[in-house]
Order: sequence, then structure tokens, then C-alpha cells
Amino acid sequence: MDDTLIVSGADPADRLNAAAADSVGAQDIPALLNALGRRARKAARRLATATAAEKEAGLMAMARRIRLRADAILAANREDLAAARARGQTPAFLDRLTLDPARLEEIAKAVESIAALPDPVGRVLAAFERPNGLLIERVATPLGVVGVIFESRPNVTADAGALCLKAGNAAILRTGSESFRTSMAIAEAMGEGLEEVGLPADGIRLVPTRDRAAVGAMLAGLDGNIDVIVPRGGKSLVARVQEEARVPVFAHLEGICHVFVHAKADLAMAERIVLNAKMRRTGICGSAETLLVDRACAGTHLKPLVMMLLDAGCAVRGDATAQTVDARVSPATEEDWRTEYLDAIISVRVVDGLSAAIDHIETYSSHHTESIVTDDDEAAERFLAEVDSAIVLHNASTQFADGGEFGFGAEIGIATGRMHARGPVGVEQLTSFKYRIRGSGQTRP
Amino acid sequence: MDDTLIVSGADPADRLNAAAADSVGAQDIPALLNALGRRARKAARRLATATAAEKEAGLMAMARRIRLRADAILAANREDLAAARARGQTPAFLDRLTLDPARLEEIAKAVESIAALPDPVGRVLAAFERPNGLLIERVATPLGVVGVIFESRPNVTADAGALCLKAGNAAILRTGSESFRTSMAIAEAMGEGLEEVGLPADGIRLVPTRDRAAVGAMLAGLDGNIDVIVPRGGKSLVARVQEEARVPVFAHLEGICHVFVHAKADLAMAERIVLNAKMRRTGICGSAETLLVDRACAGTHLKPLVMMLLDAGCAVRGDATAQTVDARVSPATEEDWRTEYLDAIISVRVVDGLSAAIDHIETYSSHHTESIVTDDDEAAERFLAEVDSAIVLHNASTQFADGGEFGFGAEIGIATGRMHARGPVGVEQLTSFKYRIRGSGQTRP
Repeated sequence: MDDTLIVSGADPADRLNAAAADSVGAQDIPALLNALGRRARKAARRLATATAAEKEAGLMAMARRIRLRADAILAANREDLAAARARGQTPAFLDRLTLDPARLEEIAKAVESIAALPDPVGRVLAAFERPNGLLIERVATPLGVVGVIFESRPNVTADAGALCLKAGNAAILRTGSESFRTSMAIAEAMGEGLEEVGLPADGIRLVPTRDRAAVGAMLAGLDGNIDVIVPRGGKSLVARVQEEARVPVFAHLEGICHVFVHAKADLAMAERIVLNAKMRRTGICGSAETLLVDRACAGTHLKPLVMMLLDAGCAVRGDATAQTVDARVSPATEEDWRTEYLDAIISVRVVDGLSAAIDHIETYSSHHTESIVTDDDEAAERFLAEVDSAIVLHNASTQFADGGEFGFGAEIGIATGRMHARGPVGVEQLTSFKYRIRGSGQTRP
Repeated sequence: MDDTLIVSGADPADRLNAAAADSVGAQDIPALLNALGRRARKAARRLATATAAEKEAGLMAMARRIRLRADAILAANREDLAAARARGQTPAFLDRLTLDPARLEEIAKAVESIAALPDPVGRVLAAFERPNGLLIERVATPLGVVGVIFESRPNVTADAGALCLKAGNAAILRTGSESFRTSMAIAEAMGEGLEEVGLPADGIRLVPTRDRAAVGAMLAGLDGNIDVIVPRGGKSLVARVQEEARVPVFAHLEGICHVFVHAKADLAMAERIVLNAKMRRTGICGSAETLLVDRACAGTHLKPLVMMLLDAGCAVRGDATAQTVDARVSPATEEDWRTEYLDAIISVRVVDGLSAAIDHIETYSSHHTESIVTDDDEAAERFLAEVDSAIVLHNASTQFADGGEFGFGAEIGIATGRMHARGPVGVEQLTSFKYRIRGSGQTRP
């Protein structure tokens, strides 16, 4: 625990003190956070009526300020890296934490690409005239204040803040402690960008303390001043957020994604899709963890699929039938069907047709993303209708489970809940709506 | 507390025992409720793929069964009434509890009108083709299992159950104890209607106990088998649900609705709208509680508006200026601006223009419904944009805040939260969505 305010320079310190001005002191984390919440709510009210042009200008200014402050951001990053190295972090962790001029430019460009997205606020989602002449519109509005809790990834600071802002929301960002200095320097730059165009810097604030109590305060909802929490990180972070949050959460705990190779699957297509779904990147939530093969085509399809995976360096854990294919197939236990490997491992089961495949998925899936490979459109339609997951695909890789691949421009994460946002959470999903009614003196009889 | 299972006849008892079959005993309320939740989840899975025709047939069968069981329902109602009378309930309460053949026919007709609504499930909410040829659709799906907790209103049993079912959801209904026998008889009839068309009777279940512990179990989420809770009742019920629920809630705590009479308001229109907004029905959530009058037109508009309200039998609590109008105007305290009277009482304040009106509303409103009366379209547009309430109106009465008036056919309630549903919650708002993607072998590069 580290309950002091850590800042990355004199100027930021002033800004942080300002942010915490009405708190009772830096030691008092809930009070500090609640003050942050009140300021975010006030900023959100201003941002809710910001024009598309204002928001776009603000985001472009942020990107510019990130570039202008490159030296300070990279210096802060070197401090973070040195500390992480001293704590003995793994090379993979250090690599994710590392910024260089090229990676920082990517961050600035990502903010610009969010600036260029269509404004999701003000869209007329429905419009109808009532017999009494009332004109009713359902119109998109911001959600309010979004709390984002993430692990030590410097780029998330910019991505998440920019996405929230594009949708007219204020963002309260909580970074993992290892990237605290880097994230703070980036958040500072973003706040400056907002101020440059006359928008409130409180619209994007990084929680100015590493104290873990800050997370608890956010999960408690900051006295009504956080409307939704988005966790970005590993399973333990998401599990804690889902367990403790007193406000709505957009998240997925895990992605136990399935590919079902149906009796009528083209083998070559099935091979391409299975290989891609499992092996393109094994560490993302949309990667496949279980392959289901229809018993009706197991005779022709099972062995080529399993051998292909083994040859690609994937460990295979199979049911009794799958184990007969090759000695390298180890037995799958009940636990395997429930496991998100996030690694070059796959579980393989032979199932008795479409219904059994759907039953398996409904039993073990995390309701994230599932795919059927088949040339039988009727089977495909049944799969698409009956599988209750955020994303269901026919003849395509589960690795398309990504906001960018959906054309959303960017995503803050993928949600598997059924409320409000489901699937990739882009700027549209970061909005709410209200009803706008225009009358000419109508009263209700 | 009453921890025995109360049933309205031998047949229902069998059914209830069946519902509780896998519980560890009627005394164990959480186990009973969790069993109900598991059965509801199973039913929800079947209902999610029910066709529009199946659901319509099921609802029509429910209406028929309600009529067929009229004698049993009315007999159960007489028992409820006798018990309520013995407990000394007020005439108004007894009236709300009372069913007669005409009121029961209204209930059956309401179910039929819900049957006739368009199916909200399967609607394609968005569709787009990606450059790689993937066809992506966002398609409406049921939410899952809806828990409805309501007070002793027999009609809500049928309304809420039918609305949930129309959207492909299973419903777990918890009635106030005073209408328990009546609600149970109605729920039985509805379950029979479902079975008649081959849909699971577990799709609509009344919690088969009056034990208040059942509410706690529902608020805890029934082991993941309740997706959303809808409370229908007074402020204390809603407050408890909002405070304790571990699942999302669609609700409004109160409706502190405002009418703002702007400088450019037509006086005659303002009078009609204010009178209707306050006095048409004072006990509904969309009734106005505060009248704001622009100082710029107070000289001409304030006195007629206040006198009209007083003459209509409305008590007026005003600020200093409003008190000068008539001796019957009593002083409004700070508390008045925060009070939902649900009665023939209104608070009146003179404000310095549009910005001050918006500030007052943003400070005191419950974000339910607010209206501006003005001939100035620019002022109206600013009001509609800046007031952050579920429903904002221009030149119309706040009493239009009702799903029926929106053309939604029926509503299960009005929500003031920003997540998922906002404003009237009709069958569309009782759905979620998923992404359905059709490919031709695409893999992600």
C-alpha cells in the first residue's frame, strides 16, 4: 500500500492538488475519490452538451499534447520501467509497459482515430408521431461518468479516456500501479488538450494515488457519481469488480469460446477457421478454447483437425474419441471444458450432432463468442438462434470478436452481460438515451 | 413472517410442490427460491427460441384460462379481501385489491392486447457488411429471467407476467402478501395457458410463499438466475430494491417532475398544461410536483397560474414571490423542492430565466419527466438538450409519461437509470441483443 500522492512533476502536482481541493486530505482516499467523482459529474454535465466539433477538437488537441509532452511521458515511463525491473517483473510484462517514440505515436494516432469517429450522441434512435400529434424521439445521450479500472498498460489511459469523451462522458481512470507515472503523464496531456478547447480537464482524470483503497471507493460508486465501471485486465481484476461493484459493470470474466465443426462442414474451411480461432493469437478473449466435432463427420474431419493443431504446436486435450487420433492427445477432464487456457492448448470433444453441441456450449461457455462451421444453412441458423452468446458466427473465426473488426473504430472492452452493452463496447455502447417530446399544448385526457 | 406455503386449492398445491421439488423444504426459503430460479432459467432458454406465433398463442391461452378460472380467482380474491379487511386496511387499499367480473375481464383483455403487440425478439437492430465480406447483424434477444416485485395489486400479476413473456423472458413474480391468494390463482391460470400451447409453465411463476425472506433471495440474484429486477410499488419498496439488489434494477424511486413556464409561454396553454400536469391524477409518477415560472413573465403569468391551482383545490407552497399572489400560498421550504407529494400540492418558484430553471431541475429533479412551456423554439431546444431526465417535453403535459401514451402498448414501469432501459419500460426494453455474423470461411489476418 502506498497512500501518498505520486506525481510526475511540479505542474501535475498543482493539477492534482486542484483535483483534490475539496477532499479532506490525500490520506483520506474515499474523500479524495468522492471529490474526484463530484468534479467528474460536473464535467460530465458540460460534456453532455458539447458539440461534435468541440469533442473532435478536444481529442485532436489531446493527441497533439501527447506528442508535445513526449519527453515527459517517456521519462515517466523510464521511471516506471526501472521500478518494475527492480521489482523483478517478467520480460513480457516489461515489454507491455515499455513506451518508445513509435509506440507513443501509435497512442496519439489512436486518439485521432477516435476523434474521427461519428458522434454517437444526439443520434435519433427512434421517432414516432402519436395520434394526438405528439412527436416522440428517442435520442442518444451520454451515460455520464465512466470508471475504468485497468492494469499496467500505458495505452489504455489514452484509449479509454478518448472513447469515453467521444461519447460525451467523463472518465475516471484507475491504472495499475506499475504504469502510474506513465499514465499520469499521459492523462495530464489529455487534460491539457481538453482545456485548450474550453472543455473541462475534469472530463478525463487519472486517480491520483496508487492506494488500492481507491478501487474500493470506485466500486462503491463514488456517492452516485460513477454510472458504470469498465474493468480492463485479467480474470482476478474482473472477478473482483463484478463481485464488489455496486454500479453496473461492462465486462467479460473470460472467453471460453467454441468452434463447432458440424457434419456438413467443408474440411478445408474447418481447418482454416479452427487454426485461426485457436492459434492466431492465443492470449486474447476471442481465441477458441474448445473444438467440438460432430460425430457424423468425425471419421473424416477429426484426425486432420487434431493433427493440424498438434503440428501447429498446440497441445490437445481430448475426450475418448479424440484421444484415439494420436498419442500426443492427452485426456480432457471435466475441468478442461470450463477452462480458458489463453495459451496454445485446446480441448476437443466429439458430440452427437447440433443439439449436443449447443447443449455443451450452453453448459460450459462463458457466453462470449462461438462459431459453427457448416455448409448446412438450416443448421447454421439454428446455431445462431439458440446459442446464447454475445457473438455467434457461421463460417468465420472466433478471433473476429473485436470492436475494430466490427467497424466500431475502437472498443473499451467486450461485455458478456445482457444489460445495455453486449459484445464489443464501442462509443455507441457508451451512450444512453432519453425521450424528447415536442407538442403543441397537448394535455392527457 | 409466515413461512408456510399458502396455496389456493389442491391443484395449485401440486403445482407448487412441483415447483419446489428440488428444494430442501418449504422452510428453507433461499433453497426454494433458488430452485425457482433454476426452473425459470431453463424455461427462459426454451422461451428464447419460441416463435412469435407460439408466444402469441400462449398469451391468448392465458387470457382464456383467466376467464375460465374466474370463479376460483374471484373466490381467492374474496379471501384476500376478508383478511385485509380484518387487518383494518383502508377503503382505498381494499378498493385496489378488489376484483369483480368486470375488472377481471379488464385483466384478460390486457393480456390479449400484449399478445397483439409486435414480437420484440429477433428484430434486426443494425446490420452491416464488413470489407472482408462478414455480414454482421445486431439482433434483439430476450433478457433472460425477470424478477418482478410488486405490492398488492392483482392486475400486476397478469400484466408483468405477460409483458415478460412477450419479450421471451421467464418471469418470477413476487406479490404483496395481501393479494397473495388472488395473484396465485391468476398465476396458475397463466401457467396453464403456457402449458396448453406447449410452452413451459415455469415461464411465469409466482413466488409461492409470503415469507419476506423471498424478496431478499431475489435481490441476491438467485445464484445468477435473475437477470434484472423490476420493483413496482411505493418508494420504500423501490428504495429497498435499489439499495439491496445485486442485479440490475429497472425502476424510478420517485417522480419529482417539473413544469417550467418560460418567458415566451402562451398563458392559456401554460394554464392547461400546468393544470393537467398537476391535477389530472395527482398520485402517478408523471404528475408535476414543482412549477417554475420565468421571472420575465411572472408579472402576467404567475398570478393566473397560482389562482387556477388554488381554485382547482391544489395547495400551493411558494417562494417569496409566489407567496405575494394570495394569502393561501404557504411558504415553500428547501425540503419542498425535493418532495414528491403525489397529492394535490405543488411547490412554485420564480426563476431567473431558462438557465436558472435548468439549474433548479438538475439540482432537485429525480430525472423522470420535465416539461417546458414556451413559444420560443430555441429555448425549448436548449431545455430538451440540457435537462438530463428520462423524458423531456415541450408544450405538453408531464402526465404523458406512460408507456401506453408512447404507443408501447403496455409498460412494466418507468426507469430513471441510464443503463439499458430509460423512460417507459415496454416489451422492447425487456430485450437484450446479440451479434449474429455470417461468413464464408473468413479468418482474421
